[in-house]
Order: sequence, then structure tokens, then C-alpha cells
Amino acid sequence: MRITVLAGGIGGSRFLRGLQQVVPGDGADLPITVIGNTGDDIWIHGLRVCPDLDTVMYTLGGGISAERGWGREDETFTVRAELADYGVEPTWFGLGDRDIATHLVRTQALAAGYPLTEVTAALCERWKPGVRLLPMSDDRAETHVVVDDPSGGTAPDGTPLRTALHFQEWWIRYRAELPAHEFVLVGIDQAQPGPDVLSAILDTDLVILPPSNPVVSIGTILQVPGVADAVRSTTAPVVGVSPIIGGAPVRGMADACLRTIGVDTTAAGVGAHYGSRHQGGLLDAWIIDEADAADAPLVEAAGLRCTVAPTLMTDVSAAGSLARVCLTTAGLA
Amino acid sequence: MRITVLAGGIGGSRFLRGLQQVVPGDGADLPITVIGNTGDDIWIHGLRVCPDLDTVMYTLGGGISAERGWGREDETFTVRAELADYGVEPTWFGLGDRDIATHLVRTQALAAGYPLTEVTAALCERWKPGVRLLPMSDDRAETHVVVDDPSGGTAPDGTPLRTALHFQEWWIRYRAELPAHEFVLVGIDQAQPGPDVLSAILDTDLVILPPSNPVVSIGTILQVPGVADAVRSTTAPVVGVSPIIGGAPVRGMADACLRTIGVDTTAAGVGAHYGSRHQGGLLDAWIIDEADAADAPLVEAAGLRCTVAPTLMTDVSAAGSLARVCLTTAGLA
Repeated sequence: MRITVLAGGIGGSRFLRGLQQVVPGDGADLPITVIGNTGDDIWIHGLRVCPDLDTVMYTLGGGISAERGWGREDETFTVRAELADYGVEPTWFGLGDRDIATHLVRTQALAAGYPLTEVTAALCERWKPGVRLLPMSDDRAETHVVVDDPSGGTAPDGTPLRTALHFQEWWIRYRAELPAHEFVLVGIDQAQPGPDVLSAILDTDLVILPPSNPVVSIGTILQVPGVADAVRSTTAPVVGVSPIIGGAPVRGMADACLRTIGVDTTAAGVGAHYGSRHQGGLLDAWIIDEADAADAPLVEAAGLRCTVAPTLMTDVSAAGSLARVCLTTAGLA
Repeated sequence: MRITVLAGGIGGSRFLRGLQQVVPGDGADLPITVIGNTGDDIWIHGLRVCPDLDTVMYTLGGGISAERGWGREDETFTVRAELADYGVEPTWFGLGDRDIATHLVRTQALAAGYPLTEVTAALCERWKPGVRLLPMSDDRAETHVVVDDPSGGTAPDGTPLRTALHFQEWWIRYRAELPAHEFVLVGIDQAQPGPDVLSAILDTDLVILPPSNPVVSIGTILQVPGVADAVRSTTAPVVGVSPIIGGAPVRGMADACLRTIGVDTTAAGVGAHYGSRHQGGLLDAWIIDEADAADAPLVEAAGLRCTVAPTLMTDVSAAGSLARVCLTTAGLA
């Protein structure tokens, strides 16, 4: 069985760890392909940082910080402290020493002309995540967030000036607390999907949209030219898992993102946002948590088959159970 | 009083610390200008590393490892270990975590188009070394060492193949144990001296060649087009200190370097190599250690005034005494 998962960072990675319990790889045979979000990528101190790809790689490769859910276990922050002593900006990005080695290898390989897909594969030779990890694109396309000028600047008529922050600055420095008028994925028009991205969606047995941020993670991947069309037209079933439980995001600040694009922070709201493939949307089925069971009729009304199940991934075993629900829902188990 | 010193790494830095005892700076007034060797510079893991400039900056700025004499005090090597786990080469260069921050700042500033002279000044804003630290050149010119192929390859006629190693590889990886046929400063023909380098030699009260490596440190600086001519023609006295005590280098592997250029590893040999300004050479006077007092007639015979003094810089105070001898020898104290 081949399964393709469109994944962001922490939520996607935890789901993937469960999915690997159900569909384990065997040596070079990797049944799971992950299309990773690179809209969060950023140049920091001259280093190319790919937070979501690294979260998947470290989580599945056994190097993730269990406590933080991102970055490396047993991490130190010596370089970061030194950079602060030099007074160089930005100071709000949590660049760890172990993590920096990854970015040095990546940056140097990119500078040598290797595309991100190949660089990611090379990094994965160390981590052996047990999945095929494909960046959504080898081209640079980074999410920016349009906000009112944080320094309070106004136009002559008194209206607030607007400015665009890199997603990471909005997310980390401002903790998504500045109301976002719009998300703009700068560069996406010219971006191409990574070499195997479309075929991984079109030529597979199951496509899963795991409980990642539907706006700035999965929504970003879906903006890569050709990706949404591939999801709409694949012959494989497409199953999604709600990242909203009991009307709130499990982790992260998806509500602030959903508000910006006018989607309710509810299991049914996100499901309807993805939409039914019968009606030009992306999903065949939508899995919602038992806490949102009351949303099921709304999900069905949106043209989606609805499965109600425990979706909170409290541990790998719970994530495995959720993955099994995905396969059952798709009629594959 | 203005003093200009052509300096390599450890020996030059220790001398400078002594010189600062004798000629202290006062706020923005920095009487000492250091022309630093950049022939040891190297790109490692995509970072621009300037070992000699950093040794001067860290030593005078209070950040140097007292034990090693290079790199940072309280250093950790987390990034290096991670890079090794990725299997990326080279593994023989001792890149510390604290040090990496310096290289990140430098590399990013160079990439933004700032010349090395300005980047060095910016780094020194943090370290406040109390001297004006000028790279010998803003252009890339790195010392390479011609050796017999370390893997033992031979030509069809049985003679050893020759190869050129970067100086750092020869020095660190092979500990200068591979016989060097030649040193080649790749790029020096097209290199220009740094913006203030020539004027710092021509318009000063004293030029000092401290006990740095006469081949790959001071010899390298002297290869920058215009520098040797400036030393020959400056109206300031030029005083040198022998790096050889008792017929051996105090530290480092200067003997292996001197052998390559056919100079005896003696105090008189190195003095005669620099030569007398009366005879087209570089020095007015040459300071040798008491252990080499017997060399004094040979030094004088080479046309140099010779001062015999304790030259071993066992501590800052001893370095200060040596600096005072330089001033006395030049008739400036």
C-alpha cells in the first residue's frame, strides 16, 4: 500500500509516527510519502532553515525534542547567545546548536546547486525517517502575513499602515497575536511542485490530510501550482483529519489563521473549507473528534463522509489508532 | 605615537597584548594598527573563517582560549559533532560553537557585499580589541602547500605525484609533517592591499614584525602587492623580533616552513631572510633572544642592528618587556 500525506510540522509529524505503526516501512521500501510544507522556510543568519521538513525528519528519525515538539533533543543555544552578543538580528528565532549543523549542511548544498528535494534526501540519509520526505517545491515561496504596522504607524488619514511580516516573525515573535489581514505566499506563482510531488498524489492508494494547520501548513502546500488539482483528480481516496477538537486547535494558533480566511474554528468549518470532491473540493471523507460529534451532520451536509473517532494524539499508540481510522474510513483496512 | 604591527595569529597576538601595556589606547584613540594575515583564511561548511584575525580579536578582546591560544574560552563543539554525524567533510577543522557565531556574522556580511575590512571592524565593535585591526587584503588569497600526494600516488615513471593542499589542511590535518615543496598564495597577484594598509605602514612612527611565523604569517602579508615596498620605503624605523629561540620555533611549526624556503631555523637565519633596509631588505633592527646571543655577529653581518633581550613571552608582563625593547631599539623610548 502506498500512502501520501500532506504534512506541516508538529501535528503532521505526530500523525506520521502513528501511521508508521500501521504501515511500517521495510528497508528501502517506504510506503509512506510525505509532501512537506516549505512555506515556513526562512533565511536566518545566512542559513536556510526549513522548520516543517526538519520537524518531520527529526520526529521520525528520533532526534526531536519531546518537550518542545520542534528542534533537537538535548539542544544547546550557544551560537544564538553569541549572535545576540554581536547584536545581530533577528533574536527571536530559536536557532539551536545541533539544529545549526543541519542548516549548515543544507545551506552549503543549496549553494552548490543541489535542489532542496535532493538536499532533503541527503539529510534524511542520516536520520532515516522511514518515509520518503518531499519538499512541496524546490522553489522559494515563503508565507508572509499582512498586519497593521506593529510600531503603530498611520497614514495621513489616520488609518493604520499595513506591513508584511515573514510568517515566522508573526508566529514566533508576535505569537500570532497581531490580527492578520491576509496571508501571502510570496513567490508561489512562479513555484513548481517538487519533482515527485504530483505523481505522489496521483499515483498512490490513499491521500491523507492530517491534523496540520489547514491554512499555513496544508493550505500552503495546496497553493503550489498543480497540487490542489492533483488532489481533486487522483483516483485514490482522500481522507482528512480535523485539527480542531472541541472548537479549538489542539496546538498552535490555527484559530488566528482560520479567522483571517473567514473559516470557523470548528471541525465542520474546516471540513467544509477543504470541501467535497463531489463538489470540486478536496476530500472524500473527514474524520472529526468525538468531542465534535454534533458537527457530523454539518460535515455530511457539506458532501463529506464523516467519521467520528478519538483524534487526540496523546501518544504514538493513540496516533496509530487514528491512522488506522484513516485507513478504515478509506476502505483500505 | 603610532605603531603598525604585521601580525599572524598566536605569537603576534601575545606580542600585541604586551605592546598594549606599553602603548595603551584611550577610547577611540588607537595608537596601534595591526595588519592581519588572511592567507590562512578558509571556507569551511560554507562559513568564512579568518583564523589569524580572530585570534588577534579574541586575544585582545578577552575571549581567547588561554589553554589553546586560538578559538574561544569555554568553547563547545556541538555543531562540529553534528556535522560529523552527517558525514560531511572536512572533519579535521576545530570549529567551535561560539566561534561559529563569529563566522556566521562575517559570512552573512560578506554575502551582503561588505568588504572584509568593514566586516572585521564590525566584529571588533563587540570585542573592542583596543587596536585598529586591518585585514591585509579584502581579496581572497589563500596559502596552499605543494606536497607529494598523501595517498602515495605516483606518475608512470615512479616519481611521486604532487598535489596542493590548503594551508589549514597541511597545518592541522597533517601537522605540517608532509614535506612542503612550495607555498603558493593562490590569488595574491590579483589581490589589493586593504584600504588603509599601505598608509598604515607609510604614515606611522614604528613598524614592528613581531615573532609570528616568518613564512606563512608575516611572509604572506609581505606578498600582498605594495606591502613589502611600503615596509622598505617607510620613514618609520622597522624592527623585527625573532620567532626562533635557541634554534627552534617557540610554538607552531615554523621550522617546517623555513626549510621549504631554504632558510635556517636560527635567529640569524630569519633576520637575514628579512634582510637589511640598507641592502634592499625590510628591517632596521632585529631582536633576538639571549639564548641566541651567539648569533648577534651574524645578524650584524647581515647589515642589521641587533638587540639581544629576553624574548620568551611567558606572560603579559614578559610580552610588555619585549615590546618595550622594540621601542628602545627604535629609539622611541
